[in-house]
Formats: sequence, C-alpha cells, structure tokens
Amino acid sequence: MIIIGEKINGSIPSMGKAIAARDEEYIRNMAIKQAEAGAHFIDVCASVPPEEEYEVLKWMLEIVQDAVDTPLAIDSPNPEILVQMLPFVKKPGMVNSVSMEGNKTDIIFPAIADTKWEVVALLCDDSGIPQTAEKRLQVFDQIMDKAKEYGIDPSRIHIDPLVEMLCTSEDGVNMVLNVIKEIKKRYPTIHVTGAVSNVSFNLPLRKIINQAFMVLAMSTGMDSAIFDPLDKTLMGMVYATEALMGLDDYCIEYISAYREERIGLPKKK
Amino acid sequence: MIIIGEKINGSIPSMGKAIAARDEEYIRNMAIKQAEAGAHFIDVCASVPPEEEYEVLKWMLEIVQDAVDTPLAIDSPNPEILVQMLPFVKKPGMVNSVSMEGNKTDIIFPAIADTKWEVVALLCDDSGIPQTAEKRLQVFDQIMDKAKEYGIDPSRIHIDPLVEMLCTSEDGVNMVLNVIKEIKKRYPTIHVTGAVSNVSFNLPLRKIINQAFMVLAMSTGMDSAIFDPLDKTLMGMVYATEALMGLDDYCIEYISAYREERIGLPKKK
Repeated sequence: MIIIGEKINGSIPSMGKAIAARDEEYIRNMAIKQAEAGAHFIDVCASVPPEEEYEVLKWMLEIVQDAVDTPLAIDSPNPEILVQMLPFVKKPGMVNSVSMEGNKTDIIFPAIADTKWEVVALLCDDSGIPQTAEKRLQVFDQIMDKAKEYGIDPSRIHIDPLVEMLCTSEDGVNMVLNVIKEIKKRYPTIHVTGAVSNVSFNLPLRKIINQAFMVLAMSTGMDSAIFDPLDKTLMGMVYATEALMGLDDYCIEYISAYREERIGLPKKK
Repeated sequence: MIIIGEKINGSIPSMGKAIAARDEEYIRNMAIKQAEAGAHFIDVCASVPPEEEYEVLKWMLEIVQDAVDTPLAIDSPNPEILVQMLPFVKKPGMVNSVSMEGNKTDIIFPAIADTKWEVVALLCDDSGIPQTAEKRLQVFDQIMDKAKEYGIDPSRIHIDPLVEMLCTSEDGVNMVLNVIKEIKKRYPTIHVTGAVSNVSFNLPLRKIINQAFMVLAMSTGMDSAIFDPLDKTLMGMVYATEALMGLDDYCIEYISAYREERIGLPKKK
C-alpha cells in the first residue's frame, strides 16, 4: 500500500494557521511525524489565494524536503503552479493532480514525460464528476490516451476514481468499487488511489466508515491512498488487510508496525 | 447480517465461573445485553464435563429463554445432547453445529427435518479440517447431499467454512474467502457464518484483524457471524460495511444503531 500523508494541507485549520504564521517548525514536525509513521509520500498543499500560492508552496516544499527524505506530493489545483514547482524539488515525487479538466494533462504530462515523477489523475472533466461508472471509465480512457501520447507508463499513474459520499448514495460505494476493478483489469500495473475520508462525510463515527471502506477498496484493487498516517487504527487496518490478503507472509510487516507503535487501538478510558 | 451472540459460553472464563456457581442473574443479564445490542440469536454453550452437560445446558436454556425472546443457538459438540435439548426450547432457533464428523448429520438433520430450526454446519470431517479449498468444498457437497436427503432447505443452513489463524497462514485468508464465494455461487440462499475472532489468534491488536476480516468476509458473501455483539466497534464495522455494500439505503440502519448507542468507537483517554 502506497501511503500519501495528507497532513500538510492549508485547508486543515491548524495547518492553515501555521502556514499563515509562517511557522516552519510546525510544518517540519508534521513532515517528520508522517515519515516516521510510514508515509511513502508527503503531500504538500498550500490552500492559499492564487496570488500567494507560488511563494508559499515553494517555501513549504523547501521546509519539508529539508526535514525528511520521503518523496513529496506537490498538491495544487493549478497545473501551471505544479509545473513551476518541479525544479524546486530535489527528487522525483508525485504531482497531485491532473484530470480531464481544461488542459491540465497537456500542461503536466509533457513536463514529467521523461522523468520518474508519478502523477495522481482524477476521473473528472469540464462537466464535473461523472455519475455513472461507464462515464467515469470514459474519462479514464481519455486520460490514458493522453498518458500514452506523452509516453507516461501506467505504473507512474495513480488513478483517483473519486470516492462518493456514502450518505447520499443509493447503492453504497459499489459504483466506485466497480470502477476500481475495471481499471485494474485494463491496466494491471496502474495504481488506484483515493482520499479515503470523503466517503464518510456527514455521517457519525466517520472513522468506522473510513476503516471499512479502506478494507473494501483494498480488496478490489486500491493500492495507494491519501489519508492521515498518524491515525494508528486506520494504519492498522491497512497492515491487517495486507496480511489477510496474503501480501504479508506470517504477518511480519504487521507485527513490525505493532512493535514500532505505528499501529494501535485507541486507548480506553 | 445475522448476528449470533457468543457471550454465553462456559469456555469464556467469567461465564465458566458463573455457570459453576449457578449464577442465574449473570447469565440472564448477558442474554438481555446481547439481545439489546442487536443479536439475532443467543448462543448457549455449557462447556462442562459430558456427564453434567444435559442438566447444565437445559438449565441455561431455561434462563435465557425466560430472559429474552431472541431465538437461541444450542451449542454443543455432542449431537445427542443437541437433539435432546430441542423439546426444551420454546421456539425454533439454531443448532450449533453439525459437520461430517461421525454421524452428526444423521442424528441432527432428521430431528430438525420438519421444523423451522436452522443449523450451523462446519466444513470438517473425521480426518479433521481440510487444508485445501477443494477438499473443504468436497465436505460441503457431502453436507448438502445429506441436507437434501433429509429435506433441509439451503436457506436454513449456515455454513462455517472454518476461518484459519492468520499468523500461520501463507496466503492470508484467501483460501477461506474463495470457499465462501464458491458456496454462495452454488447455493445463493445459503448462509455463510464463522467465528470471526479465530482469525487473529496469536497476533497483537486482535480487534484490528477481526474488524478487517469481518469486512473482507462480508464483501465475499459471509452474511452471518458468531461474535461479541457488545463490541461496539466490531458492530459498527458490520453496519458500515452493509451501508458501503449498498444494503442500507441512506445509512438509515447505521444511523439508528449510532443513535441507540449500539455502535461506537472506544473512548479515548
């Protein structure tokens, strides 16, 4: 499972405050904690007004890559900014994200074509998020056509099928799970990722929904996810599911994660 | 999901003590708590020496059916005892269990043939627990042949495919999941059940493994399970998974369970 640590994001209120206050130590500390928890990529997202984003994101990337060796995921809604940031990052990481909106793929794909950078691709386009599996897979095909055009191997692409909110769905998450299965069938080496916590929006006990979704999504082929690696129970669920799926012989990884206190249960009162 | 409450079992130390002390109140209370938590059947197992089992189990069944209206699961390794207990139980419940060991099916199936009693059937025989999916499915076919012979409809049968201990398995729980899928394919109306906590034997943070297994097993077709319904997080996982699988429109059941405090997260310190 490829774990993308989500904590350095200005849309999280405490991180937004730290960014506004230019609190280097807070950001640095959050990078170190996520790396120690087992994140494979550290997402870095400024969430500031467009006119500030270039300077703020550049500043954040410097802090994080100074603090940890973990590859970064540069996160911005602006494809121009994403491309402008590439030269400031010391080693290949992940671009978060492209989609079929506007000319995002035509800006980002050529910029990473002959590199080892990976990329998150969302299954949406200028008309928004398609409501059916069929239409989402059409967007997928368009993205893969673009990737082929620019010579980007499927193994460098993390498709985010866009997890629904369970509370308003009539068929649970079956549609997204079907999209995941179909994507992995068409391209076995591609990665499937997602922002796991979206699924539980507006429901009580969100952690329970997130944990159950993580297991279901992994069992259908999701092998990458954007979440909080400091959540030891959710991390435990990832390790447990890998062991149950036969991907961790004799639970060696699970037991190591337990011994290193990277996974655990909430402490009881 | 059909929930079989496991707490009234003499092999659980505190319950064993209560049985030895003939503590009616303790047993009665545990029946009520499990029924309130949402159990569909209350398992009743004496776990006493053979010469005491008839009297003790009869006494326990009386206490439990006096305390709650929830159907009982009569639980004994001795098929003669199971049959002898049937007349003492006021309404049809579940016989736990048969298997292809000895003449269990030939003793129990005719006794419940023309009733509404359900039955748990374990996929093992006189040579023990088969190590391959193929052999376990052979035992399954033998059980179904016997069921047909005695006119017991598949919808009254809960097959327990016998969950492996993850710690000694080389392929996770894939074999058991494959057995579950195949059983449901052959008989869509049959139930698949299991003692969920066996999977985590000898591993740390057993609850995490049990929770992840519950989700995986449900996603492949398990629709019945023997576990502790007072474990609010595991119960939450069951409700969450049903909602995610599209079996709970707009999460109505999940939200009710939350409001009635039947599901929850462990309280933090």
